[in-house]
Amino acid sequence: MPRKRFAFQGERGAFSEVAGRQLAGPRALAVPCAVFDDVFRAVERGTVDIGVVPIENSLIGSINVNYDLLLAHPLHIVGETQLRIVHCLIAKPGVTLQRIRAVHSHPAALDQCRGFFNKNRRLRPVAQHDTAGAVRMLTETDDESIAAIASSYAADLYGLRVLRKSIEDEKQNFTRFVALGKAPIYPRKDAKTSVVFSLQNKAGALFRALSVFALRDISMSRIESRPARGRAWSYNFFVDFEGSPNDEAVQNALSNLEEIATFVRVLGCYRKMM
Amino acid sequence: MPRKRFAFQGERGAFSEVAGRQLAGPRALAVPCAVFDDVFRAVERGTVDIGVVPIENSLIGSINVNYDLLLAHPLHIVGETQLRIVHCLIAKPGVTLQRIRAVHSHPAALDQCRGFFNKNRRLRPVAQHDTAGAVRMLTETDDESIAAIASSYAADLYGLRVLRKSIEDEKQNFTRFVALGKAPIYPRKDAKTSVVFSLQNKAGALFRALSVFALRDISMSRIESRPARGRAWSYNFFVDFEGSPNDEAVQNALSNLEEIATFVRVLGCYRKMM
Repeated sequence: MPRKRFAFQGERGAFSEVAGRQLAGPRALAVPCAVFDDVFRAVERGTVDIGVVPIENSLIGSINVNYDLLLAHPLHIVGETQLRIVHCLIAKPGVTLQRIRAVHSHPAALDQCRGFFNKNRRLRPVAQHDTAGAVRMLTETDDESIAAIASSYAADLYGLRVLRKSIEDEKQNFTRFVALGKAPIYPRKDAKTSVVFSLQNKAGALFRALSVFALRDISMSRIESRPARGRAWSYNFFVDFEGSPNDEAVQNALSNLEEIATFVRVLGCYRKMM
Repeated sequence: MPRKRFAFQGERGAFSEVAGRQLAGPRALAVPCAVFDDVFRAVERGTVDIGVVPIENSLIGSINVNYDLLLAHPLHIVGETQLRIVHCLIAKPGVTLQRIRAVHSHPAALDQCRGFFNKNRRLRPVAQHDTAGAVRMLTETDDESIAAIASSYAADLYGLRVLRKSIEDEKQNFTRFVALGKAPIYPRKDAKTSVVFSLQNKAGALFRALSVFALRDISMSRIESRPARGRAWSYNFFVDFEGSPNDEAVQNALSNLEEIATFVRVLGCYRKMM
């Protein structure tokens, strides 16, 4: 059997690669992409089996750009997973914390380790384009006063050492990722479905739309509104709910939703993470 | 009567300053702040009458950080306004488009003028910390090959020239701003109210919460979910609706909501923009 291929945004060692291995299997081949749009395009062209993108973080909220890209591309969500974001201080082998003066990482990662910098005042945070890129940079310099903040996976990948594990302020820091494929799937059990719809801008419209799920005891796990392009203050609603479009109740709910909404699209059905 | 003072984030000439003048009056004194948190603090300390922050943009969605700050500070929303974001190409007086080689602005502004850069291939976009800062920089250099993208207000303020007006790709680009005060207000007419609440994570909870408004014909204009800090995948819901906590129907809706929600806070009542 050929190895499965998945595309992700970032450099080798990025948190998205770790999520991709959870979704595509540990032996899968990781294909790094410069921007999220390239991940979607790689799936469309068929150069990878799935694309893996972050969709939501428990601290910062939705990854807006990926909601917009879901609408712009004709792909299907075929899986989901979540990752606890554990930030590690990473240095060259043999280097101790005492020698370090500057710590490189993505601004969001530096920001999530503020307590660590407050306790270690002589360490200067330095912004980099991404966490894994900061780790790769360590392998390209002889300067032993530099460290990086990234996943422990990035340290392993580049043969570097984790000096401090879990230096993030907030342990409840999870990112949810989805897998994108060219064809839809319909899991027999533990199915979850994502839909997007838009509504006429009138009183009670959202309440009526949500009632198609509530009246059938279909459990919604998430609702997200995003501005619709080209029409100011008009929104698309992204809703995740339990069940599959193969279930009769879900079929009825979706055809009921089509009566109410000006636009409905099923983004995908997948096995929900436990 | 002393001049009203308002705080905003950014440099003099920022779009937030333009919104602040709509809210505080054209003669009001503008107090620039480095970060959004400083705007909230200035209102709390009473060094300004109101703070003005962007809350939502019709292209990019919610300004997440300000939703978090609304929860973290005990202030009240006392007004709202919206601004159409019109990007202008700004240069020193006497400089023509032909002489320009580099265009400085905030990355989001550069990104919103992609069509302009595609038509003018020899112009190189250069990222700056903010739009108004890029304009101020023009006044500090003798280099006539540099232009900036910002509001026409910034050009007027710094005595510079608008070479091209409205170079943004998408004309439906509006930002909604709110005014923050230390004390609540209750407008007699055209009142709008913003609340935030959280719910137990169970089936139908959001539907029941929204029903307290729908069953009383209270028109919701917006719903936004944001992760609650410290509890992964638990959300706060921000809802705007028409009416005032002085209306009987709204009072009933809010006490009904308190039965259902684990937490409810009225963020403010204000006159809705027309």
